[in-house]
Amino acid sequence: MSKHPRITLVTGGARSGKSALAESLAAAHEGTRIYIATAEAWDDEMTQRIGLHRDRRGSGWQTVEEPRDLAGALARTDGQGVRLVDCLTLWLSNLMAEGQPDPHIRALCRALDAQQDPVVLVTNELGLGIVPENALARRFRDEHGWMNQAVVAIADEVWMAVSGLPLRLKPQRGTS
Amino acid sequence: MSKHPRITLVTGGARSGKSALAESLAAAHEGTRIYIATAEAWDDEMTQRIGLHRDRRGSGWQTVEEPRDLAGALARTDGQGVRLVDCLTLWLSNLMAEGQPDPHIRALCRALDAQQDPVVLVTNELGLGIVPENALARRFRDEHGWMNQAVVAIADEVWMAVSGLPLRLKPQRGTS
Amino acid sequence: MSKHPRITLVTGGARSGKSALAESLAAAHEGTRIYIATAEAWDDEMTQRIGLHRDRRGSGWQTVEEPRDLAGALARTDGQGVRLVDCLTLWLSNLMAEGQPDPHIRALCRALDAQQDPVVLVTNELGLGIVPENALARRFRDEHGWMNQAVVAIADEVWMAVSGLPLRLKPQRGTS
Repeated sequence: MSKHPRITLVTGGARSGKSALAESLAAAHEGTRIYIATAEAWDDEMTQRIGLHRDRRGSGWQTVEEPRDLAGALARTDGQGVRLVDCLTLWLSNLMAEGQPDPHIRALCRALDAQQDPVVLVTNELGLGIVPENALARRFRDEHGWMNQAVVAIADEVWMAVSGLPLRLKPQRGTS
Repeated sequence: MSKHPRITLVTGGARSGKSALAESLAAAHEGTRIYIATAEAWDDEMTQRIGLHRDRRGSGWQTVEEPRDLAGALARTDGQGVRLVDCLTLWLSNLMAEGQPDPHIRALCRALDAQQDPVVLVTNELGLGIVPENALARRFRDEHGWMNQAVVAIADEVWMAVSGLPLRLKPQRGTS
Repeated sequence: MSKHPRITLVTGGARSGKSALAESLAAAHEGTRIYIATAEAWDDEMTQRIGLHRDRRGSGWQTVEEPRDLAGALARTDGQGVRLVDCLTLWLSNLMAEGQPDPHIRALCRALDAQQDPVVLVTNELGLGIVPENALARRFRDEHGWMNQAVVAIADEVWMAVSGLPLRLKPQRGTS
């Protein structure tokens, strides 16, 4: 059992401070820090968000862009330091634009299980609103929830960010 | 005071693992297990969801279908074993399609208060998104929140599922 | 360090019991109670919601209506007793209808920092649903999340209401 958890998941709503929390959890690890970005800058809004995140991280991070083959990116970077994957929601969105995401999610879980160096992953909680009228949004919400549950089952530590505050969900103290 | 709580509510977002959590809480009770289904299979998507839940529960459950008269179903099954009601959100949706839900919610609360055997109920948290543009969705969100608060006031134990993890909200340890 | 926290934020979803929780936290302070309402009654639905909140509070509250200049309202009422601001979400909505909210949010934070008497503020968690299709709703969600994080950073105590139950997020016991 290592001092630090090997697989950490940070979930939360939009603008809840989850990326900042994930960065501080990753920065607690010594050595090289590798940022695995799943975002593709296909419009101005996204380009701006990517820039904001990059500015906050500052120097001291290596960046790997990998919108689809996360399992491969983790395998290639294992042994080089802590990895921060930001985020699984955009990754799933990229996968669903091209077909069935399930084999990719299973490959991600196998890759996470095999990692030697720590990994911090960012995802969203997005099932807490009214049922979407759009059938594609409902399907995304379902697939996303199942993805989150699959990664949570592997994770040593799970946090939820709420308005910038961290709430630890796994392991819990004093609430079971 | 019995060893197990008599009335348990499990809330959570879509695909948060709330039905699985509720089933495991219900399965902790010995004796017969009765599943009270409020869903009506009016389209393929819903038929598929119902099938998924039934497959996961497996055998060992008796199923009662009751889309509207929950108070009656609880009265009829009390004394036969633990009941799992899945879910209050669909029940409210069925009620609102036909008129004012308030008398039914009050009848449910009176029935819960009178139960001898344990009841586990599943509901959704659905007020944590942007205000819906649709007036009916806003009204549903309001009625649903009031329903949840009324059942929470009666419940001995309340859990929230987040990405498959249980967070106990009532009674809380270490957070008050 | 005073016995009671000076700045308290209560967040939560729609119909989660956050206003009732905020009122009970404010009512724990002795002396005059001042309700600072940010709502403007521009339609029947809003008029009805305002009336429901006023009826629940009952007498014993002074009401100040201030849809925009919250910093000014706090400065004018400091020294007169506990203030309950309900809510920051409507305030931000009023500000965004007129221009850039950022200077107003900074002014609010400076005003909160300078208060002698306690302040309880109500806000919403609204980033936990599917990404809104509407660009204005996405921008509101972003600004709102940043506003919440800025106020959380100043607050001595932060609570989240879930289905009528209080979950304390700051300071946390037993979860860090």
